[in-house]
Amino acid sequence: MFSSVYQDRVIDAAYRNWSRLYQAEFWAVQRAHLVGLAKTGIIEADIASALAAAIERLRATIAWPEAIPRGFEDMYFVFEHELETLVGPERAAFLHTARSRNDMDNSVFRLALRKQLLDLSRRMLDSLGAILDRARGSDGELTILFTHGQPANVSTMGHYLTAIACDLAEDLQGLLEALDTVDRSTMGACAITGTGFPLDRGLVAELLGFPGFVVNSYRAISSSHWLSRPAGALEELLLDLTRIAADILHKASSEVGLVRFPDELIQVSSIMPQKRNPVIIEHIRIQAGLAASASTGLRQLLRNVPYQDVNEAADAPVSALIDSLSLAASAIDLAGETLVKMRSDEHRARSIALDFGVTTTELADTLVREEKIGFRQAHAICSAFARSGNDRELLRRSFEERCGRKMGLSADAIEAALSPQGFVVVRRLPGGPSPEGMKPVYAELAENLDRAKGRILAIESRIAEAARSLDRAWAELRA
Amino acid sequence: MFSSVYQDRVIDAAYRNWSRLYQAEFWAVQRAHLVGLAKTGIIEADIASALAAAIERLRATIAWPEAIPRGFEDMYFVFEHELETLVGPERAAFLHTARSRNDMDNSVFRLALRKQLLDLSRRMLDSLGAILDRARGSDGELTILFTHGQPANVSTMGHYLTAIACDLAEDLQGLLEALDTVDRSTMGACAITGTGFPLDRGLVAELLGFPGFVVNSYRAISSSHWLSRPAGALEELLLDLTRIAADILHKASSEVGLVRFPDELIQVSSIMPQKRNPVIIEHIRIQAGLAASASTGLRQLLRNVPYQDVNEAADAPVSALIDSLSLAASAIDLAGETLVKMRSDEHRARSIALDFGVTTTELADTLVREEKIGFRQAHAICSAFARSGNDRELLRRSFEERCGRKMGLSADAIEAALSPQGFVVVRRLPGGPSPEGMKPVYAELAENLDRAKGRILAIESRIAEAARSLDRAWAELRA
Amino acid sequence: MFSSVYQDRVIDAAYRNWSRLYQAEFWAVQRAHLVGLAKTGIIEADIASALAAAIERLRATIAWPEAIPRGFEDMYFVFEHELETLVGPERAAFLHTARSRNDMDNSVFRLALRKQLLDLSRRMLDSLGAILDRARGSDGELTILFTHGQPANVSTMGHYLTAIACDLAEDLQGLLEALDTVDRSTMGACAITGTGFPLDRGLVAELLGFPGFVVNSYRAISSSHWLSRPAGALEELLLDLTRIAADILHKASSEVGLVRFPDELIQVSSIMPQKRNPVIIEHIRIQAGLAASASTGLRQLLRNVPYQDVNEAADAPVSALIDSLSLAASAIDLAGETLVKMRSDEHRARSIALDFGVTTTELADTLVREEKIGFRQAHAICSAFARSGNDRELLRRSFEERCGRKMGLSADAIEAALSPQGFVVVRRLPGGPSPEGMKPVYAELAENLDRAKGRILAIESRIAEAARSLDRAWAELRA
Amino acid sequence: MFSSVYQDRVIDAAYRNWSRLYQAEFWAVQRAHLVGLAKTGIIEADIASALAAAIERLRATIAWPEAIPRGFEDMYFVFEHELETLVGPERAAFLHTARSRNDMDNSVFRLALRKQLLDLSRRMLDSLGAILDRARGSDGELTILFTHGQPANVSTMGHYLTAIACDLAEDLQGLLEALDTVDRSTMGACAITGTGFPLDRGLVAELLGFPGFVVNSYRAISSSHWLSRPAGALEELLLDLTRIAADILHKASSEVGLVRFPDELIQVSSIMPQKRNPVIIEHIRIQAGLAASASTGLRQLLRNVPYQDVNEAADAPVSALIDSLSLAASAIDLAGETLVKMRSDEHRARSIALDFGVTTTELADTLVREEKIGFRQAHAICSAFARSGNDRELLRRSFEERCGRKMGLSADAIEAALSPQGFVVVRRLPGGPSPEGMKPVYAELAENLDRAKGRILAIESRIAEAARSLDRAWAELRA
Repeated sequence: MFSSVYQDRVIDAAYRNWSRLYQAEFWAVQRAHLVGLAKTGIIEADIASALAAAIERLRATIAWPEAIPRGFEDMYFVFEHELETLVGPERAAFLHTARSRNDMDNSVFRLALRKQLLDLSRRMLDSLGAILDRARGSDGELTILFTHGQPANVSTMGHYLTAIACDLAEDLQGLLEALDTVDRSTMGACAITGTGFPLDRGLVAELLGFPGFVVNSYRAISSSHWLSRPAGALEELLLDLTRIAADILHKASSEVGLVRFPDELIQVSSIMPQKRNPVIIEHIRIQAGLAASASTGLRQLLRNVPYQDVNEAADAPVSALIDSLSLAASAIDLAGETLVKMRSDEHRARSIALDFGVTTTELADTLVREEKIGFRQAHAICSAFARSGNDRELLRRSFEERCGRKMGLSADAIEAALSPQGFVVVRRLPGGPSPEGMKPVYAELAENLDRAKGRILAIESRIAEAARSLDRAWAELRA
Repeated sequence: MFSSVYQDRVIDAAYRNWSRLYQAEFWAVQRAHLVGLAKTGIIEADIASALAAAIERLRATIAWPEAIPRGFEDMYFVFEHELETLVGPERAAFLHTARSRNDMDNSVFRLALRKQLLDLSRRMLDSLGAILDRARGSDGELTILFTHGQPANVSTMGHYLTAIACDLAEDLQGLLEALDTVDRSTMGACAITGTGFPLDRGLVAELLGFPGFVVNSYRAISSSHWLSRPAGALEELLLDLTRIAADILHKASSEVGLVRFPDELIQVSSIMPQKRNPVIIEHIRIQAGLAASASTGLRQLLRNVPYQDVNEAADAPVSALIDSLSLAASAIDLAGETLVKMRSDEHRARSIALDFGVTTTELADTLVREEKIGFRQAHAICSAFARSGNDRELLRRSFEERCGRKMGLSADAIEAALSPQGFVVVRRLPGGPSPEGMKPVYAELAENLDRAKGRILAIESRIAEAARSLDRAWAELRA
Repeated sequence: MFSSVYQDRVIDAAYRNWSRLYQAEFWAVQRAHLVGLAKTGIIEADIASALAAAIERLRATIAWPEAIPRGFEDMYFVFEHELETLVGPERAAFLHTARSRNDMDNSVFRLALRKQLLDLSRRMLDSLGAILDRARGSDGELTILFTHGQPANVSTMGHYLTAIACDLAEDLQGLLEALDTVDRSTMGACAITGTGFPLDRGLVAELLGFPGFVVNSYRAISSSHWLSRPAGALEELLLDLTRIAADILHKASSEVGLVRFPDELIQVSSIMPQKRNPVIIEHIRIQAGLAASASTGLRQLLRNVPYQDVNEAADAPVSALIDSLSLAASAIDLAGETLVKMRSDEHRARSIALDFGVTTTELADTLVREEKIGFRQAHAICSAFARSGNDRELLRRSFEERCGRKMGLSADAIEAALSPQGFVVVRRLPGGPSPEGMKPVYAELAENLDRAKGRILAIESRIAEAARSLDRAWAELRA
Repeated sequence: MFSSVYQDRVIDAAYRNWSRLYQAEFWAVQRAHLVGLAKTGIIEADIASALAAAIERLRATIAWPEAIPRGFEDMYFVFEHELETLVGPERAAFLHTARSRNDMDNSVFRLALRKQLLDLSRRMLDSLGAILDRARGSDGELTILFTHGQPANVSTMGHYLTAIACDLAEDLQGLLEALDTVDRSTMGACAITGTGFPLDRGLVAELLGFPGFVVNSYRAISSSHWLSRPAGALEELLLDLTRIAADILHKASSEVGLVRFPDELIQVSSIMPQKRNPVIIEHIRIQAGLAASASTGLRQLLRNVPYQDVNEAADAPVSALIDSLSLAASAIDLAGETLVKMRSDEHRARSIALDFGVTTTELADTLVREEKIGFRQAHAICSAFARSGNDRELLRRSFEERCGRKMGLSADAIEAALSPQGFVVVRRLPGGPSPEGMKPVYAELAENLDRAKGRILAIESRIAEAARSLDRAWAELRA
């Protein structure tokens, strides 16, 4: 019997995680391994069949106890005990041929993690699709963009939202690359060096919907990439969310007032009637921040841990990562909600453009292009103009003084250069906010989302196909 | 004039970083941009030619001052001042057409970071190649591998070293994927929304050896992926190194004594003559650990920073990342040295195998395979055998009692099953330590290294080719 | 109505935390504030009395719903709604005079955090007391201590365990200092600038068992020290636990074998009968590591968050910290169990001392002291002796050759110098392992634990006394 | 000879750190130890005197080479070699009696760290003193304070600045507590178990200006608190700075415009003449952020490192911490500069108060106090008033409708309640922004700074006194 502290703090805690998160995966691994043993003739057909029947019966009927019964180290021993009751200890033992809790647990954890990563990827894909649609629909919606917290340029919501979405799409790609590291079977690695039994590692992998297995058997059990990679990709995504939240908080602040939210995303103050807090953005920051901290922390957990089979790549940390993925999904949902539903206050955008001389830069560029003067000279003329409070007369005078000739630019051309709309329209380089500039942006983003979608669909259908194969093989085994 | 605190703590500090790390890249960006301006006709040929001559002269002759002269905000203004002296302020100003310090600095930083990442990737490739060679040469070198700090299985140095190398090769792949994020031009994004001038963004990118440019111009300046991705990949690699170091430290400890090091990697104690410390491993742990901390910290720096142009994605942090890459290179060199030069103490491996009954597991498996008994029964028989201190007589007796018949296994077969060598040879599954099992391991690793090598070579030759193109275009410009 | 995403991801999640962690504290704050309002005459006696009766009734009978009813932002509004039903909205509203959800929530969080910190401190105190007792009892239990993973000196379990306990006692002191930062009332700070009502901030603080209040009202709401300090102290403690676990894991490894554990702390292998894994130590490392990561992460959460009232210093993060404290308590319990129950294998200690020449150092010192030769010379003589496999003859020869005279040291004196026991006994400096050296160590540790105990008792009795005062005042109010 | 990789990456790197940071401390330890040996008679007077003379000569004349000569492991061996040249190897060796590089290095590192911590503490004290002066002088300077990024209350710069300063003063106190952990001698702990020589540990500690020594000798060498505590206190301080910077950045943004900076703290844009960037605040955020990351990372470095003498508590990490303290000093200087020199734009504060109905809350409170109506009713009346755009007529009408009587409040009283100045003046509770409320805030802050000052002065004078004692003892020794 274990000491009561150990029982309480370790054994029972692990069992609670297992009950909550890994049941389905546990059964899948039992079934796939038994099919593998039978197909390679490692155990005989009648034993395999008896075991399959017993496993099936347990799967259908077992009522996992609330707490693990004293004397059992983990739920696996409970299962084995039940199995022994059904088929006798001798036959029950064959199931454990050519495997160890090491490879089995590792595969169970990978399956559970893969499921959660796929769920998050799906949500991101959906949110990003909605943001792309919203961006396309907001092509002409003027806004102000900032550098170092100061209003810098006029632009559009489409330009802004796609910048965000392109970064998030790259994060999604990172998540999917990380998923590749998770998506490998470890069955057949046994404790760490494989086994003398002629198991077909590829077959078991395939039955579990894995596209392959970790070849080196020591690495299969000792590597922590399948945890650290997803954690790293997740942190990347989440820190982006904190940056996005910080930027929108600034835009949404009372004094800036560039974006507006529907009532359903607003909280009021119990004491200050005049406040309309888009607290949702703060909650994106916090949830993303907490989940990011958990991701960072998970990788730190592995620091200086011997490159061996260790419990850092097991139960408690895997469960913590799964919980972080779930909190990340919450943050992604909130961010999607926010980015899709917020609207530019174009009136405010125009007034900021005017108050802070945002378009003056463009007037300087226009002078260079149209009047063929140098950039510094144009800059000086426009600085004087800005300081004067946009005095058009002073602009012409100042040009004349500095260039020794009258300015050719018509009043209309000046107004066009100074207009927020004009500021946007002239920016036709690929990636600029004009409709022409945005074409390659939309194209790139759509293509990236399509590629991610293809990847997700391929994994999902591989898993579904494997489940069907396993069901078929299982049925044959029992027949 | 700036306050002296600001001058000292910000302006001068930035200038020191620039002098130390970014000079070559600064000149490349000046040249590529000017070629771009000239080729698109944004500035006229004679001005372009005069500017090229002046830039060339400055590049050849300028003596950057030790400290930045008072009144200059950064080295760019010093350069511009020198240029004005040579060609006059009016013509000098044309160089700044269709660009901003934002896109220019960002491209300079990306170029410098790319260089350092390539250097680290090269070193890793070389070290991994040497480890693969060493592993292939140590196929038969027996060792003991551990789980949870306890001796678990007999294996070979080849098996162990390739497990490590496969993880590191995956880290190298991660670094190269991260390098892709860095390897994009931002020129033409200007402040954040591009420009009305018809710059050819693709051409400037090409001249700088970039395979493309960040399309959305706001994203080009605001994204931090080009910092966080390499930092993330670096951390991944470095934490692996700490795990590897911890494992080797255990194997190298006096009492375990499984690996030995040449004198050139050993430090002695001033007070205890009997000590032979392979302190190099501890230094891998520390250097990898410090560089890992810096990588983690760099990403944390971006937390809650508005998604705008911010100085977090600039000078000080980029320089810190470059320094971390350099410390990581040191850790990689030390790790390569260690992994290639350490040797198994096979005598010790055999004695541990014996002392701790490591091969008893295999005897149990052999009983299952040859005697067709169940796994649990075999387990019980072997447990008794292990507890008896490997009493062969007791083994036979115990079999007879439990199975009701004599054990058929010959004395030779028993010894083979118990022999460390036999333990290895029988493990023929793909990924196991036998020569047969190792074939796909070597193949996979070699293939991964070849792919990484191909990727590195392709980037290196692209950069070299771009440098030649830029030289040619520059020569034409000046002609 | 809130958007369903917002309702689900933010409102409901916060409510679940509140139900789980903050109910008792919520009622305490309601009661203390109302007593405060009444005592200062801010609200009239009859209203106060009616409110008290209603609150008491709600406290006794309210069945908090499973989920928060739609239309309510948080549980506070549910409470207020119930109160309005009982006393009418006009009177109900008086309760909210001179306060805001800001100061109220902050005080609730501080109370809950204080409780958890006190619980952890108590557990640490108990564990450290047990370790001190065990250390005193193991004064003569020889062991080997290591530097850089190599056997360095003979010592005792008492010496080793008190080194650990002194560090942990310093951590406990750190926790108690951090608790001071938490242990301040914020009531009366209202939103951020206090109020025009003449509340008695000191009285409300006292009724809640706080020794004082955060004076500056803006700071009361904006500071995050009450979170970051405990998190920092916790991390400090937990990283110590990971270091201790790593050291014991080494000592407990099969080949080192210096410490042994009772069966109740051991797990066995399903496949390798010979293994006796003290997995408990690995679980200390993991639980401490996970809780440390959470503590680190909590502080990172605050990075770049405006120094204002923010939700980072509220619900979700506070709850995460409380959960980390609870996991830390688990790690402390496991560590206490391990440190108290593990035993030195003295036989193994002696054999390591012999095999690795650990006591040779002392022989060298003895030569310096007794033969009055120089340290380097003694070192050289002893090195030769160690290399010879401790050949006593060679020792005398070697002395003679180098010193030109016979060695005076008797055979007994040599054996005493070389004996593990002798190595310990001679180390009489304060802090050395001899009984004499250990005296000030035990004294210091006992004193530190007494001081911590005094501090904990003082807080506990202050809280108990405040609860009684509040009960009395509350009874008066209702009368 | 070491392998060239090892020489380059480890030996030379350590030597560079030593040359840069630890020379003075190295000499102090040599001298104090020799005095200790002589005073306890462990070595004889004439040898002590010869060694003292030689050490003095070396200290005055030694030219440490640029790089460490091949064949020497560290600078200590270079020193010893020089000493042997001067006094002969036999006598030179006596200096190393009763010590080890372990206790010696540890004390050297602690001395260097203490120096840097004192320097930072001094700077903080000076900055906080200046901020307190500035706060006192800005008592009446109105500003707006925010919650969740929205304007919440009117207050004063004095209120705001002291909130910040109180948190920073608590950070300073944390630094000084951490300094206590550093400020202990380890001399006499030798390798890890002390020595059989009758050294006077207290005397050596005193000569080095330590107030005591780490008693348990194993702990003296193995504990990492002297690194992790300062790192933790530093992180605490630095994350506060990032929060403060984020808040000021918001207040300083163009649209909010609540604070203004002198020209000496402003950078201009090369392309946008209208921008006035207080980039200094962003640099506080970055420098504090980078140094915070380094502090966090230093603690992470210790994770899972065996509780033994390890190089994590040595050279490279200590040097990194010293560099972080220096960067932290830079951030503190920038923050001091900013907080002292920024000014409230009171005109803007008033207009925000008006635009966003900030004082409406106070009007509601006034109605409760003067008209004796309930809080919710007052709230409803004021909400309607706020929504009407502050229509005074509507206010009276609305009161009448809801309360069934005329409002007694005079027009003047209404204006007083609504006036920003009135909002402040009425908040007389301790800690509120009125002059009366601020009294205890100033008192508390001044007292905390005085206490910190006393602590710093006491340490500084203890160190100075010890230096004089050591000089005297040294002179006697040589005589």
